[in-house]
Amino acid sequence: MSTKSSMPVKFGRVFSAVAFLLCGACATAAVEVRVADFGVSPDARADATPGVRAALSAALDAKGGATLVFEPGEYHFYPENARALVRYVSNHDNSRAPRRFVFDVSGATDLVVDGRGARFVMHGDVTPFLIERSERVSVKNLTIDWNVPLLYEGEVLAADASGFTVRVRADEPFEVDRGAFVISADGVRWPMDTFCEFAGDGSGQAAGSADAYGFRYHAEKTGAADGRTVRFSVTDNYALPRVPREGNIIFLRCNLRAAPAFFMERSIKVSLDGVAIHHAPGMGVIAQRCEDVTLRGMRVIPNDSLGRQVSTNFDATHFVGCRGRVLIEDGEFRNMLDDAMNVHGVYLQVLRRLDDYRLVVRMPHFQAQGFIAVEAGDRLRLARFGTLLPEGEAVVTKVARRGPDEMTITFDAPIAAEVNPLDALENISWTADVVFRRNTVSGNRARSILVSTSGRVIIEDNHFNATGSAIRISGDARSWFESGPVADVLIQGNTFTNPLRCGYGRAAIDLDPEVDVPSGGTPGYYHRNIRIIKNKFRLCDRAVLLARSVDGLEFSENTIELANDFAPLNRQKTEFELVRCRNVQLERNTFSGWPAKDGIVVSGDADSLSTMRFTPGQGIKTREHGAKGQR
Amino acid sequence: MSTKSSMPVKFGRVFSAVAFLLCGACATAAVEVRVADFGVSPDARADATPGVRAALSAALDAKGGATLVFEPGEYHFYPENARALVRYVSNHDNSRAPRRFVFDVSGATDLVVDGRGARFVMHGDVTPFLIERSERVSVKNLTIDWNVPLLYEGEVLAADASGFTVRVRADEPFEVDRGAFVISADGVRWPMDTFCEFAGDGSGQAAGSADAYGFRYHAEKTGAADGRTVRFSVTDNYALPRVPREGNIIFLRCNLRAAPAFFMERSIKVSLDGVAIHHAPGMGVIAQRCEDVTLRGMRVIPNDSLGRQVSTNFDATHFVGCRGRVLIEDGEFRNMLDDAMNVHGVYLQVLRRLDDYRLVVRMPHFQAQGFIAVEAGDRLRLARFGTLLPEGEAVVTKVARRGPDEMTITFDAPIAAEVNPLDALENISWTADVVFRRNTVSGNRARSILVSTSGRVIIEDNHFNATGSAIRISGDARSWFESGPVADVLIQGNTFTNPLRCGYGRAAIDLDPEVDVPSGGTPGYYHRNIRIIKNKFRLCDRAVLLARSVDGLEFSENTIELANDFAPLNRQKTEFELVRCRNVQLERNTFSGWPAKDGIVVSGDADSLSTMRFTPGQGIKTREHGAKGQR
Repeated sequence: MSTKSSMPVKFGRVFSAVAFLLCGACATAAVEVRVADFGVSPDARADATPGVRAALSAALDAKGGATLVFEPGEYHFYPENARALVRYVSNHDNSRAPRRFVFDVSGATDLVVDGRGARFVMHGDVTPFLIERSERVSVKNLTIDWNVPLLYEGEVLAADASGFTVRVRADEPFEVDRGAFVISADGVRWPMDTFCEFAGDGSGQAAGSADAYGFRYHAEKTGAADGRTVRFSVTDNYALPRVPREGNIIFLRCNLRAAPAFFMERSIKVSLDGVAIHHAPGMGVIAQRCEDVTLRGMRVIPNDSLGRQVSTNFDATHFVGCRGRVLIEDGEFRNMLDDAMNVHGVYLQVLRRLDDYRLVVRMPHFQAQGFIAVEAGDRLRLARFGTLLPEGEAVVTKVARRGPDEMTITFDAPIAAEVNPLDALENISWTADVVFRRNTVSGNRARSILVSTSGRVIIEDNHFNATGSAIRISGDARSWFESGPVADVLIQGNTFTNPLRCGYGRAAIDLDPEVDVPSGGTPGYYHRNIRIIKNKFRLCDRAVLLARSVDGLEFSENTIELANDFAPLNRQKTEFELVRCRNVQLERNTFSGWPAKDGIVVSGDADSLSTMRFTPGQGIKTREHGAKGQR
Repeated sequence: MSTKSSMPVKFGRVFSAVAFLLCGACATAAVEVRVADFGVSPDARADATPGVRAALSAALDAKGGATLVFEPGEYHFYPENARALVRYVSNHDNSRAPRRFVFDVSGATDLVVDGRGARFVMHGDVTPFLIERSERVSVKNLTIDWNVPLLYEGEVLAADASGFTVRVRADEPFEVDRGAFVISADGVRWPMDTFCEFAGDGSGQAAGSADAYGFRYHAEKTGAADGRTVRFSVTDNYALPRVPREGNIIFLRCNLRAAPAFFMERSIKVSLDGVAIHHAPGMGVIAQRCEDVTLRGMRVIPNDSLGRQVSTNFDATHFVGCRGRVLIEDGEFRNMLDDAMNVHGVYLQVLRRLDDYRLVVRMPHFQAQGFIAVEAGDRLRLARFGTLLPEGEAVVTKVARRGPDEMTITFDAPIAAEVNPLDALENISWTADVVFRRNTVSGNRARSILVSTSGRVIIEDNHFNATGSAIRISGDARSWFESGPVADVLIQGNTFTNPLRCGYGRAAIDLDPEVDVPSGGTPGYYHRNIRIIKNKFRLCDRAVLLARSVDGLEFSENTIELANDFAPLNRQKTEFELVRCRNVQLERNTFSGWPAKDGIVVSGDADSLSTMRFTPGQGIKTREHGAKGQR
C-alpha cells in the first residue's frame, strides 16, 4: 500500500510529514516519496541533485521505510550539489580528496529507490550511489549513463607500427595539449594514457589484440576539417606490438579508477533489480564489507542507441570482504574494459610481531588502502608466505590503525611463535557464498569472472563469450593480495564461446593461485572441491583447463569443440595442465574438432597424475612433467 | 640585453621566432617574451592561463634561454585550461588523478619568469608552478594568492566545552550539508574536518591552544540574518579539550594535502626571488630530487590587505631527497598551518631479501608514494631497524618498480647476509647542505623548522617566534620515515621567542630521533656534531633542549631568559634533557629569570653526563636518571 499526494506540494519535507501522519496506522506500509513533489521534473537538463537529495532525505526520515519514486524520463546530475564525502573505495584510486555522491544513502533501513524506467545522466566526476551502513535497500528500474563517458572512442582511419590515426566521436570534447590527448568534459580534464582496440562491429575487444597499448605517445591533430582526427605516434623507439585494424575502435582511456556507479559499504541486504549501467569512470558496482547483495537483471552494457561500443572503464561488479550471499542472476555484461565479476577477500601482510598477542600488519595493495579489512570480533587465519597454507586462527580483540595502510592487531589468544614478516592473514569472518546464474558476459577485456572465496560458489547456466580466460580462480599474497582459497565451487551448464581470443589467461578456466607448491611429498593444497560439469565449450585455443594446487577437481560430462574461429594464442601447450593437484577426475567428456593425430593431452606432475581418474576412450593421453611451474 | 617588440604581435610563436632571429648573434642574452604580446592583460578576471601558457611555450622554445615578463597588475588563473598531468607530489595527498598546472615548466634551461610585481590569483584546485627536469630556472617578483583560499576563517562568537559558534568571512562561500561544513568555492567542494584556533590579533596560533581540534562535529547554521553564522557542536560524548576564546579565529580546514604553490622535481639550480605566497591548499614550495634550490626574500604570509590571518594550509617549504644546497635567506614565514621548512630524505623499508644482490623494499609512508626515492647509480646506506645505526653501503644498479610503493632494488655488491625485514635504507647520494639565514618565522602551527640531512647545515641570524619547538632535528623509520642523521649543524645568532606556547615538541630545540638507543656500553649515536652558539632565547617554558643519541653537541655562549609571557606547557621537567648522548658541552651561557632556588637542571643518563663538559658558575646542576626514554 502506498500513499499518494493528490496535489503537488513544493516543499518536500512538509509533504513527507503529511504522508507520515497519514500512514501512522499502517506499520507495514512504506511511505511513498515522489521526487516530482520536490520540484524535480524529468527531461530537463537542470541539475536534479538538490531536489532528489531533498526527496531522498525525506524518504530516509520516514520511520518504517519508504519508496522514492521517479517519473519515467531523463534526469541530469552534476557534481556541484552532490554530497562531498571522503570515502575509500576498494580497488579504485583513492586519496583524501572527497568524492561527490548524488544518492547519499547512509544509515537507511527499508528504502526502495524506484526509477520506474528513468534514465539518470551523470556529468563529470560524480558517484551516483553511495549505500553505507544500511539494511534492506533496493534500487530498481533505472538506467545510469554519463553525459560524456570519461572513456573515449576513436575509429581507426590508418595505422602502422609507428602509430595510428583515429577519428574521435563528435560528442566527446578533447584537446591535444603538448602531445597529450586530454579528455575535457564536464569539468574533468584527464590525460589519456592507455589504449585498447575493440572490433568495429560491436563484438568487443578485437580478437588477437592482446592487452591495452600502454606506450608513450605523441598526439597531434592531423588538420582534418572536422578537427577530430588525431594521429598518435609512438615515441622512445617503441613499435606497436600489433597494428590496429582500420575500422576498429581504439579506446582512449585514462588509467584512473575514479567514480563507480554504485559504492556499497557495511550494508546488509542490498538489491539492484533491473538496473542498467551504460558507463562508469570506475567500476559498475563495488561492494565492500556487505552482507547479502543481490543483482537481478542487471545490464552493464554500452549505450547502443548512441552507437557506443564500451560500457564501464573497469569491472562491471566487484565484491571485497563481503559475506552472506552474492547473487547475480539474469544479467548482461558486455564490453567493459575489465572483468564482469570479481569476488575476493584481502590478504593482510604481517610486518612484525610485537608480542604474544599483537601483530603489526599492512594492506599491501595501494588500491585497497583505507578499506576496513578487519575489525574487532573478526576471525583471522594465518597463511604462510609462499605456500599460503593455513597455520591457525584467532579472533581479533582490537585494531589500532596507523594510517591508511598499516595497523596493529591484538588477538584473543597468543600468536604461534613462528609468525614471520610477509606471512598473510585472511579474514574468514567475511567470506561470501556466490551464485552467478543465467548471465551473459561478452566482449569485455580481461576475464569474464573471478572468484576466490571459501563460501559455496555456484556458477551455472551462463554464457561466457570471453576474450581471455572465462573463469579465473586465483588467490595471491604477492601482487593484488586477493584472498582466499575456494572450498566448494560448482561450474555447471555454462556455455563458453571462444575464450582466449585476445589474452589474459592461459586456459578457458584458470585455477591458478599464485602460490609456491610444497615440495614433493609434503601435503597441502590451496584450493579444493571444484566441479566443472555439463558445460559446453567452443574453443579457438585448445587450452581447456589449468589447475594448480587443487585437491578435488572434477571435469565431467562437458562437451568441448575445437572450432578454430580465431587464431589460437597457444600460451598453454596442452589441453589440461595440472600442477600439484590431487584427486582430479576427467570423465564422460566429449571432444570434437581435434586433429585425429593429436588427441587430448593431460600434462601434469607425478602427484597430479597418480591420483587422477579418467574415462578411457575420450582420446586422453597423459604426459608427466617435473616440478614445472613450481615457484 | 633584452629584445623588445615595438608593436604587439598576436601570435606569440611568430613573435618568438622573430625575437630569436634578432637575438641570434648574442649568445649570452636571453630572449624576452612578454605575456602582453600573447593577449594577456593585467586586471582582467578572464582566464590568463591559455595566453600565459602560449607565452611560456614560446619562452621554452627559445634556445639559449628566455625571460617571460609580466606587466604589474593582477592575473587570474582557472583550472580549465591548466595542464592536466599525473604527478606524485611527496608529502601531499596523491592518487592517479591528474593535477592541473598553470606554469608547466618541463625540460627548461635558462628560464626566468619575471612577474615585475604581478599578483597571480588562482581559482580552485590548481598548482601554479610545475618545474621539472629543468636547469637554471628563476621565478621572481610576483605574488601568488587564491581567489578564495581553500581554508576558511571563522570568528568565535561563543564557545563552551560542547562546541562553538563562528561567523565565517563574507568572501568564503560554504554550505552546511547534513551536519557537515563544506567549503564550496571555484569548483571545489571539500568537507572541513579539522579545526585550529588562532589569536584574533594576527599573532598566529592562540597560546595554549595546543593542536588542531579533530573531533566529530555537527554543524548547523544559527539562523542569524547574515547566513554566515554556524554552530559546531561536538558529538560522540566528546568535550573540547580547550574552549576557544571569543574573538579568536577558528580555521576550518580540510585535512587534504592538495595543490602546492610550487612543485619542483629533478631540477637543478632553481631560484625564487622576491616571491610571496599568501595561500596554497597544500604547501608553499615542495622540491623533490632537486639540486641547488635557492629561495631569497620569500614571503609566505597571509594576505594582510584582505585581513586574512593564515597563509598556507601546510608547510611553507619542504625539501625531500634533494642535494647540492638548499638556501633560504631573508624570508618571512608567518601563520602557516604547518612548519616553515623541512629538509629530509626518505627511509625505504626492507621487506625481504631475494638473493645476494636484490632486496624488495617499500616506501612506507603513503604520502611519499610515487616519489622517485632511488634510481640506478644512487648509493644507499643500510640502517638497522630500531637503532637506525649504519650497517654498510652499496650502489644501486637497477630499480624495478612494483607499484607506487614497492620496488625491487639490485645492488652492485652482495648484500650482507644479516639484512632483515624492516631494516631501513637511506639514499646518501641525495642529501643536501642547508643554509637558513636571516629569516623570520612566526605564529605558525607546529615547529619553525625541521632538518635531517647529513650535509652541512647552517641556521643563523633568524628570528623564530615559535609556537612549538623552534628547531627539530629528528629522523625515524617508524611513522614518517624521514631520514636521516645529521653530521654538521651550526645554529648560531638566532633569536627564539616563546617557543612551546602552543604545543608540538618538548623543548625549544628538539634533537629527538625516533630511534632505540643501544643498550649501555654499546657504541653508536644517531646524530653528531651539532653546535648551538650565541643565540638568544626568551622562554615561557623552561625546556631549552632535548637531545637523544647525539655525539658531539655544543650549547655555548647563548643568552636564555625565562620571561613567563605565557603559561608553560611543562612537557619536559628540566632545562636540558640528555638521552644517550656523548661529548656534550654547555659553556659560557647566560641564564636569567629563573627563581634562585631552582637552578638550571641538566638531566641525563650516566653515559651522557660522564662525557659532558660545562662551565661552572652558570647555576647548572646535573641529575642522573636511568635508561629513561629508551625504547
